[in-house]
Amino acid sequence: MRPPLLSLDEALARLMQAVRPFAPAEAQQVSTFEALGRVLADEVRSVVDVPPADNTAMDGYAMRCADVQSAGVVLPVSQRIPAGAAAAALLPGTAARIFTGAQVPAGADAVVMQEQCVPVDGGGVRIDTVPQVGQWIRRRGEDVRTGSVVLPQGTRLTPQALGLAASVGAATLSVARRPRVALFSTGDELVMPGETPPDRMPPGAIYNSNRFTLRALVQALGCDCTDLGIVPDRLDATREALRRAAQGHDLIVTSGGVSVGEEDHIKPAVEAEGRVDLWQMAIKPGKPLAFGEVRRHGGAEIDPAGPGSAYFIGVPGNPVSSFITFVLVVRPVLLHLQGVVDWQPRALSLRADFDWPRPDKRREFLRVRRNEAGGLDLFANQSAGVLTSAVWADGVVDNPSGQAVCAGDTVRYLAFSELLS
Amino acid sequence: MRPPLLSLDEALARLMQAVRPFAPAEAQQVSTFEALGRVLADEVRSVVDVPPADNTAMDGYAMRCADVQSAGVVLPVSQRIPAGAAAAALLPGTAARIFTGAQVPAGADAVVMQEQCVPVDGGGVRIDTVPQVGQWIRRRGEDVRTGSVVLPQGTRLTPQALGLAASVGAATLSVARRPRVALFSTGDELVMPGETPPDRMPPGAIYNSNRFTLRALVQALGCDCTDLGIVPDRLDATREALRRAAQGHDLIVTSGGVSVGEEDHIKPAVEAEGRVDLWQMAIKPGKPLAFGEVRRHGGAEIDPAGPGSAYFIGVPGNPVSSFITFVLVVRPVLLHLQGVVDWQPRALSLRADFDWPRPDKRREFLRVRRNEAGGLDLFANQSAGVLTSAVWADGVVDNPSGQAVCAGDTVRYLAFSELLS
Repeated sequence: MRPPLLSLDEALARLMQAVRPFAPAEAQQVSTFEALGRVLADEVRSVVDVPPADNTAMDGYAMRCADVQSAGVVLPVSQRIPAGAAAAALLPGTAARIFTGAQVPAGADAVVMQEQCVPVDGGGVRIDTVPQVGQWIRRRGEDVRTGSVVLPQGTRLTPQALGLAASVGAATLSVARRPRVALFSTGDELVMPGETPPDRMPPGAIYNSNRFTLRALVQALGCDCTDLGIVPDRLDATREALRRAAQGHDLIVTSGGVSVGEEDHIKPAVEAEGRVDLWQMAIKPGKPLAFGEVRRHGGAEIDPAGPGSAYFIGVPGNPVSSFITFVLVVRPVLLHLQGVVDWQPRALSLRADFDWPRPDKRREFLRVRRNEAGGLDLFANQSAGVLTSAVWADGVVDNPSGQAVCAGDTVRYLAFSELLS
Repeated sequence: MRPPLLSLDEALARLMQAVRPFAPAEAQQVSTFEALGRVLADEVRSVVDVPPADNTAMDGYAMRCADVQSAGVVLPVSQRIPAGAAAAALLPGTAARIFTGAQVPAGADAVVMQEQCVPVDGGGVRIDTVPQVGQWIRRRGEDVRTGSVVLPQGTRLTPQALGLAASVGAATLSVARRPRVALFSTGDELVMPGETPPDRMPPGAIYNSNRFTLRALVQALGCDCTDLGIVPDRLDATREALRRAAQGHDLIVTSGGVSVGEEDHIKPAVEAEGRVDLWQMAIKPGKPLAFGEVRRHGGAEIDPAGPGSAYFIGVPGNPVSSFITFVLVVRPVLLHLQGVVDWQPRALSLRADFDWPRPDKRREFLRVRRNEAGGLDLFANQSAGVLTSAVWADGVVDNPSGQAVCAGDTVRYLAFSELLS
C-alpha cells in the first residue's frame, strides 16, 4: 500500500498533535549563566524596578531647571555622585556633578550633559544651555516595573534574553530539559571516512555524511545527541539499534531506509518495536518520512526519558533530503518538545534573480544564496545527492507546487540562519 | 582631548588592520564530528569521486534503452543490486533490479523507476515506458571530482559543511584554534542577581546584565570565555584584572568605563599595562569604544595565547550599547582572528512599517521586528538602557546618519540570527 501523500503543513500538524511537550515537572533550574539556547519553562518576572531610581543617561550636572532660566548661569557644585553611590538631596541653587547611571538627587529635575557645561574657578560650573524638565533623566521603573513579566514561558534564551533576565534579578531560570536524541544511519553502502581509505572502498560504497550533518544539527539546537553509528541493513540489527536507542532518549532519528523499496528495513523494524507510519510528504527534496514510537523495555537503563516510548522519525538517506527534512520537520519537533510555540521559521519575500521554468508538482525547497543586489541566485545543481548545494547556499526558496519562477519574481526565502538554530 | 570621531566602517578597518589572525602554525586537527562552528585553517579537497560510480537516483530497474524501444516490453530480471553491492555487467536483453544509490551495472544506460514497471510471472518485468539514455543515472564524479576543493580555507563549518567534508573522505579537519576571551565588567553600581536580594540593593545599584549577555555572545560564537566578574572602579583593581586577563587570552573585552567621564579607569589602566586608543564611533547606541593591547608578563601561566600581548576592546556599559557594539565590532574581530574573511553580516532591504522622524546625526541601529506582512515594526523605547528592545527585536535597522524614515520606505535590516552566530 502506498503511504498517504501529505502536504508539509499536514505532516507538521500531525507531528505537533502526536508529540507531547515535556511535562512541567520535568523542568530544570539552571544558572542564568548556563541557559543559552534553553527554553523557558516558566515566565520571568522582575523583582525590581528598572531603573531602580531616577538616574542620569549622561555624564554631566544635575540641577533644578528653576535655577537655570538662561544660558550661562553659574552654579556652585554641591556634591559629586558616581554611579552606584547614594545621592543627598540637592541643595537649592546648586548643581551636582553626576555620571552616567548615577542616581539623580532628590530635588533635581534635569541633567545637562558635560559638553554643555564649563567648570569655573572656585568650584562652580557654568551651564551654557537652558535645561528642560526631565532631560537626560531615566525614571524609576520606566523600563521595567517590579512584578512585570519580562520573558514569557516558551522563550528560547538568546544572549540578550539572559542579560535581561539577570537585569531583573533572575540568577537562575526554570527551563525545559534538553531533548535527548539518538541517531543512527542505515545503508550497507555507507563507510566511515578515516576508517576506509579511498583505495579500499568496496564497489558502490560511499562515505557517510548524514551522521555528521545530523549530529551537528542536533547539537546546534542545543540537544543532547547519542550517535549509534551505522546499522547494517538487516531487520535484526535495526531492531536491536531501535531498542538501544529507545532507552534514555526522547527521539530517535534515523537516516535512510524510509522509501518503499524492499531493501528498507526501517518500517518492519519500527513496527516490531512499536508503531510507525510511513508518509510521503509532497516536498522536494525529502519525500519519504517515517514517524512513530519505539517502546522502552523496563528497568535496565537509568533515567529513561519517559514512561512508555521514544518518538521515532526516519528521514531519507540522500544527504540533501535528510538535511532539508531535518530542518523542516525534526527541528520543529525538538522545539515543540521543549514548549516552544513559535517554531515556524520566518520567511522573507525576496527577488529571484534566476529562472526555474520546470517546477516540480511537489513543493520545492531550492538551494539559493543572497547576492549583493539583494536578490537570490540559484545553485546550478539541485540534485538531492549533492550536499554542495546546501553548503554554497545561505537558504532555500520555498516554491509552491507547480509554480514556475521567472527572474524578477518575488519568492519566499527561508534563511539557514533561521533554520539551523 | 576628545577621542577622534570615527565612522563604524573606519573603526572596523582599523581593527582589521591592527589585529593579526592566528598563524597557520596554530591550526588544530580536530575530528570532523567536533568541528561545528570552527573555521577551516586549510581547504578541504576530495579524495574520491562523488558519486564513486554511476549509480541510480531511484528504486527501479536498470536496462539498455536499445532493448526497450516501445512501452510494454518484458525483460527477464538477471540480477538484483542493492545499494553497496557490486554489480555484474548487465546481460544483454535483461534488466537488473536496482535500489536508490546502487551502482548501475556496466552496459546499462538507463533506469526506469519502479512505479513504471510491473513484475510479471516467471521472474520478468514489464517496462511501461520508453526510457531515455541516462535517465535516473547519477554519473561518477558528477557532483565532486577527486582532488577538487569542496571547502575553502576560512569557511565557518555549518552542519552541512561537516557532512560535505565527511562525504569526500575528511575524517579530521584543520581548523583555527578557538579564540580565548577574558571578560570583565566595571561599575561600582553593579551587583549580582542571586547575591544581592532586591531589598538589600544599595542606593543606585543595578543588577549586572552585561556579564551574562557578553559571555553568552562569546559562547555563541564558539569561543572560549573566562569570566573575571565585576571589577571595582579603581585603577589598581582594573590594572590587576587586566594583567590576569592578558595571560592565556587572545582578547580582553570589558564593559563600562570607556566614556570620557572622570570615573572611568579603563583608559589609564590599559595605558599603564599596554596601550589604548579611545574612539568615538558615530553610531547610536554605542558611541565610545576603547581598543588596545595589554602586555603579558612572562612565564607564570601555561599556554599564553601569543608572545607579547592580548588585544583589548572596551565596550560601553549600557546594556543595549554593549550588545550592539559586541555584534558590530567584537564579533568581526573574533571571526578575523580565526581567518574568516567574509565577516560582514548580510543585510536585507525591507520595508519600514514605522516612522522615525527625528533621526540622530549618528548612524543608528534601531531595534525592530519583522511582522507578518513582511515589514518591520519598531520597538517603542529605543533607549540604550532597555535591553527589552534587543529581546523583543529580531534585528536592527541600520539607519544612515540624519536620515528620517517614513512608513513604506525601504531600509537596511540586519537579522540577529546573522549577528549572533
